[in-house]
Amino acid sequence: MIIIMSTKATTTEIDGVVKRLEDRKVGVHMSQGAERTIIGVIGDRELVSRLEIEGMEGVERTVSILQPFKLVSREFHPENTIIDVGGVKIGGEEIVVIAGPCAVENEKQLIESAWIAKTRGAKILRGGAFKPRTSPYSFQGLEEEGLKLLSKAREETGLKVISEVVNPRDVDLVASYVDIIQIGARNMQNFTLLREVGKLDKPVMLKRGMSATIEEWLMAAEYILAEGNHQVMFCERGIRTFETYTRNTMDISAVPLVKRLSHLPVIVDPSHGTGKWSLVSPMSKAAVAAGADGLMIEVHNNPQKALSDGPQSLNDDNFASLMQELVSVIHAIGRTCDFGDFLEKEKGFCCEE
Amino acid sequence: MIIIMSTKATTTEIDGVVKRLEDRKVGVHMSQGAERTIIGVIGDRELVSRLEIEGMEGVERTVSILQPFKLVSREFHPENTIIDVGGVKIGGEEIVVIAGPCAVENEKQLIESAWIAKTRGAKILRGGAFKPRTSPYSFQGLEEEGLKLLSKAREETGLKVISEVVNPRDVDLVASYVDIIQIGARNMQNFTLLREVGKLDKPVMLKRGMSATIEEWLMAAEYILAEGNHQVMFCERGIRTFETYTRNTMDISAVPLVKRLSHLPVIVDPSHGTGKWSLVSPMSKAAVAAGADGLMIEVHNNPQKALSDGPQSLNDDNFASLMQELVSVIHAIGRTCDFGDFLEKEKGFCCEE
Amino acid sequence: MIIIMSTKATTTEIDGVVKRLEDRKVGVHMSQGAERTIIGVIGDRELVSRLEIEGMEGVERTVSILQPFKLVSREFHPENTIIDVGGVKIGGEEIVVIAGPCAVENEKQLIESAWIAKTRGAKILRGGAFKPRTSPYSFQGLEEEGLKLLSKAREETGLKVISEVVNPRDVDLVASYVDIIQIGARNMQNFTLLREVGKLDKPVMLKRGMSATIEEWLMAAEYILAEGNHQVMFCERGIRTFETYTRNTMDISAVPLVKRLSHLPVIVDPSHGTGKWSLVSPMSKAAVAAGADGLMIEVHNNPQKALSDGPQSLNDDNFASLMQELVSVIHAIGRTCDFGDFLEKEKGFCCEE
Amino acid sequence: MIIIMSTKATTTEIDGVVKRLEDRKVGVHMSQGAERTIIGVIGDRELVSRLEIEGMEGVERTVSILQPFKLVSREFHPENTIIDVGGVKIGGEEIVVIAGPCAVENEKQLIESAWIAKTRGAKILRGGAFKPRTSPYSFQGLEEEGLKLLSKAREETGLKVISEVVNPRDVDLVASYVDIIQIGARNMQNFTLLREVGKLDKPVMLKRGMSATIEEWLMAAEYILAEGNHQVMFCERGIRTFETYTRNTMDISAVPLVKRLSHLPVIVDPSHGTGKWSLVSPMSKAAVAAGADGLMIEVHNNPQKALSDGPQSLNDDNFASLMQELVSVIHAIGRTCDFGDFLEKEKGFCCEE
Repeated sequence: MIIIMSTKATTTEIDGVVKRLEDRKVGVHMSQGAERTIIGVIGDRELVSRLEIEGMEGVERTVSILQPFKLVSREFHPENTIIDVGGVKIGGEEIVVIAGPCAVENEKQLIESAWIAKTRGAKILRGGAFKPRTSPYSFQGLEEEGLKLLSKAREETGLKVISEVVNPRDVDLVASYVDIIQIGARNMQNFTLLREVGKLDKPVMLKRGMSATIEEWLMAAEYILAEGNHQVMFCERGIRTFETYTRNTMDISAVPLVKRLSHLPVIVDPSHGTGKWSLVSPMSKAAVAAGADGLMIEVHNNPQKALSDGPQSLNDDNFASLMQELVSVIHAIGRTCDFGDFLEKEKGFCCEE
Repeated sequence: MIIIMSTKATTTEIDGVVKRLEDRKVGVHMSQGAERTIIGVIGDRELVSRLEIEGMEGVERTVSILQPFKLVSREFHPENTIIDVGGVKIGGEEIVVIAGPCAVENEKQLIESAWIAKTRGAKILRGGAFKPRTSPYSFQGLEEEGLKLLSKAREETGLKVISEVVNPRDVDLVASYVDIIQIGARNMQNFTLLREVGKLDKPVMLKRGMSATIEEWLMAAEYILAEGNHQVMFCERGIRTFETYTRNTMDISAVPLVKRLSHLPVIVDPSHGTGKWSLVSPMSKAAVAAGADGLMIEVHNNPQKALSDGPQSLNDDNFASLMQELVSVIHAIGRTCDFGDFLEKEKGFCCEE
Repeated sequence: MIIIMSTKATTTEIDGVVKRLEDRKVGVHMSQGAERTIIGVIGDRELVSRLEIEGMEGVERTVSILQPFKLVSREFHPENTIIDVGGVKIGGEEIVVIAGPCAVENEKQLIESAWIAKTRGAKILRGGAFKPRTSPYSFQGLEEEGLKLLSKAREETGLKVISEVVNPRDVDLVASYVDIIQIGARNMQNFTLLREVGKLDKPVMLKRGMSATIEEWLMAAEYILAEGNHQVMFCERGIRTFETYTRNTMDISAVPLVKRLSHLPVIVDPSHGTGKWSLVSPMSKAAVAAGADGLMIEVHNNPQKALSDGPQSLNDDNFASLMQELVSVIHAIGRTCDFGDFLEKEKGFCCEE
Repeated sequence: MIIIMSTKATTTEIDGVVKRLEDRKVGVHMSQGAERTIIGVIGDRELVSRLEIEGMEGVERTVSILQPFKLVSREFHPENTIIDVGGVKIGGEEIVVIAGPCAVENEKQLIESAWIAKTRGAKILRGGAFKPRTSPYSFQGLEEEGLKLLSKAREETGLKVISEVVNPRDVDLVASYVDIIQIGARNMQNFTLLREVGKLDKPVMLKRGMSATIEEWLMAAEYILAEGNHQVMFCERGIRTFETYTRNTMDISAVPLVKRLSHLPVIVDPSHGTGKWSLVSPMSKAAVAAGADGLMIEVHNNPQKALSDGPQSLNDDNFASLMQELVSVIHAIGRTCDFGDFLEKEKGFCCEE
């Protein structure tokens, strides 16, 4: 940390800051300029992060040198983390697709959607059982009944399943049914919830908050890792900007940025990111081209009847086309995929390197 | 709701939409333009809010006519709601000031800060016992120990107390110690938590989320009212924008807007809203001039030693000046205050109407 | 400026940076930490602002110590600048109100609006002759004909006049008719235009760009002062955020901030800032309470027939009420006003200190 | 347009609105709901865009049905527009790369950079002669001298050239030297400048303003087309958000959106969009994968010595790698490129379909 003193700081004020630093046993490096004094602080990352200097008299501002995140940083762990979800590897060479409906509505809807996901090459089934909805009068999810249906879909199709938890009290319940626990955008800084899932031995997908900076997002993951659970993947789902044509503005540049700053995998959710099914395909290709490790796509057996987020869901045909088009982009950037038999011809071309 | 069909919508698609509406028993009003068909939907607010039309084929977009909030709306409850916090009335003629440190740190700090608050005319003491912090390595609060200290400060000074709850499991615990429960900005859409405090018979202060629209904010309050607790006050604390000179951008226009849309009181927090103590005074005056019912101000017995948010806290002198300056503005807009003896001279002038 | 070298910077890279600095004759202060080297740069503000260090190898980032603005800064000019517009003083004790229609539409509309402005206490008449409009199919202004009508209104009412210039070619033309030249939000970084008005001996009002940071805004003013014209006043008119209830989000905190950073006057335009006439009154009071030197308010003799921005214009009644309410707030913060006879009773109370 | 009347609108107010519409000869369609009246307006796009209804009494709000843009819309012109820049086709099957330095600094720099661009497969050379800079103390460009150097570079390398115009007075001058005129982000709503370039018979590249909505961007292009010049291409260059890790947030979803709404080509500038050279390559691939028709990339013969935007410029090696990687992505999405000899092996694979 660098402390920039005001041009009007008195010797007493400067001495006060130095004394405080020395009391806390951190190193001090003074630099006396023509106009003002600048104080370098040398010390342990956590120790420095706990110093509270900004309010002291004579201090104009402070500048962090160290990144505030540690366990999630690539400096700390240079190799890519590969998360093994019951045999499905996320963060390695292979691009993994998660697909399914926004909300679990009933058995028929979920099982049919699951078979679409499975047939077209997805490895993991998504489906919300606990839905955070802006209005208390909107459909809020089937809760445990929804988790049981996800379990059933897993048995029938062999897909792994992911679902969101919103209540710290339900963490064990949700964890007992799913293969990946999802923390939604609205809960990215629900630190109680982050700590709870940090105690699990189960992969966690951490969605980016609507207005979360990349630093805040990494720090939210740090909460989970700090509790012992290092199986965290990020999910970019769009940020809130002034633009209203799209539901959110997808921050595709977050993908290469987070891959550079952190060793953890990055998934992209173009369905929530854009809110329009017609943009899901181009944005999926863009995400993969930018370096995403996987995609999460809303697929519904009958999008027109969806109880939640219908306008952004793909049906079987759209999803099949998307997966077909993705194969070439995945190949073009030197990564692999295993989308199964339906792409027989492409498979030989793309995925058997 | 108005449904705008695409210029290319077929008769079958239009009929499909109409059938769906009729199946759900809502009224339909067709309007056939030269270029496209527009369908008006007539029906109960909640029923219409559950229709999922946007994903249907041939639909270009839908436009809401009804506001989605109900219990919080001024249409539903035309008179101002006045919340009685053990005799302190919020939402009436009187401007109420809440003051105290960001976090409860120890007994000396809290009691000294409480006496500053009391002496200068605040009626309610703030102090965080559970602190949501961006970094897991920052001070997280004294938890129940902090609540006990707040209780003690209440006994000594007679001030009412407000503190934040972050975990649904702690709602009853926090409620047993405080007079107002605070829901922080990061938890504005923690719907689990909103429902829990909705079951209490205790006032709730709902801070605006960093990137929450006014509609989302009102809908979050709707969650609390829908559970039966109508003692909700809003707190504007700045929104996240591109501007970096201030920690947040205070949306002062939200004050008159929310007062118009809703019957519930609106408090303003200029300390978090700006992040700079030197802006607290002008922004407090602006908030009151714009129609706020109260202010929440960070005051610390020794801001330079604060463990959290030092740079935005006032000390005794600054706070005394602020309160003195506020009196004239409160008078100028025709409202009242009761800041006690320290403003002896002003009192006769302002507060005894 | 402080240069933070990467943890992986080689000695050669560090030497490269130092050599470049020394070649440019700026002072260098090395600080060797455990993890990385930090280089302090000591030198003249303009010289340092021209260094291009960020792209050099081994450099992680640079941190500015000096503010980039100079002539506009309060450090450079500690006293408030008071601009004399033909006897109307802006930036002193008195709060000055500018009022009038968004666009000059015809003689009747302008003269009637001017008399409303005059009667209710405004000192300056606004009216757009050249209108920047989002659509090429919207009304674009009466151009020189509009300027002539403004001139006529000035003769009849004695008000000073302000109007916007959008084309560098029209600067002399507009300057020949008006008392203050306005640079609109969309042209805040039209540097050609800024330089042109910088050559005039005429006051300039510089509106904040929709997404301009405070620093960019001050730098835009620096362009005008650098050409020799120091009669610049700022006008905050709302910034673009995610919120859609209001046309823009008024950044009231910009008022005290800019007053602190600069010696130039600050005006607030709550009509464009909110886009809703019902918010103009509360936001006007808030702006004055926060320290604004004046207000710019849209007033129209018949807002319902306005060709531009009708929904945000006040009529005579609303404007009269606003001015009446403003008087007490102006008094409460210790400033003065001279709104004339119509406030006979208030005048004695407020404005004759 | 649909007019939503207030629930409290009187019969007189409703009649007033209807009368105004009928006076302007537009069709009216009344819809009387239980709670309020809704009025549909039927008529010519331009006529309706000139109605000023929002300020009328009893009107709650209006909803546009027609898109406000016309000549730029795909409805008006269903086929892709292909712009022919002296034989280089933009908007067709081929992906075109524009490359070169941010600013023209001197002959050596420009010619060397031009040869890098040429050798690696770019077809068009960029280089700023008139530079809009935040600070009046930063390098502002070589002006006409820079244009002459661009001309020289064109002669030597055979590349087409693009350069920015900032002053309406310089439009003819710049047009006489370049093959494409660029309108920069800060001038996107400089309507005077838009109209001037609209009178030319020369391609124009219109960059998106930092906080411009997609609708405003399309309307800015409408200004140019409305003057007769239909050779307009868009350039997405990032928007301003709260995120500070990147200089701007690239809105990649704008690419497929604008391609859907308009027939005009879309270029992407990942250099300004991210501000970091290390993100240029992943974002270039993402842009192409999302459907961009071309890229504009900052390339400098010696980025470390660049007078402007060094940190975001590629050198020869980086640029060569980028072009090589792009080829596979271009192929993967079924488009073509002609990057010349240096990619001999890839050429056979990719670009000779």
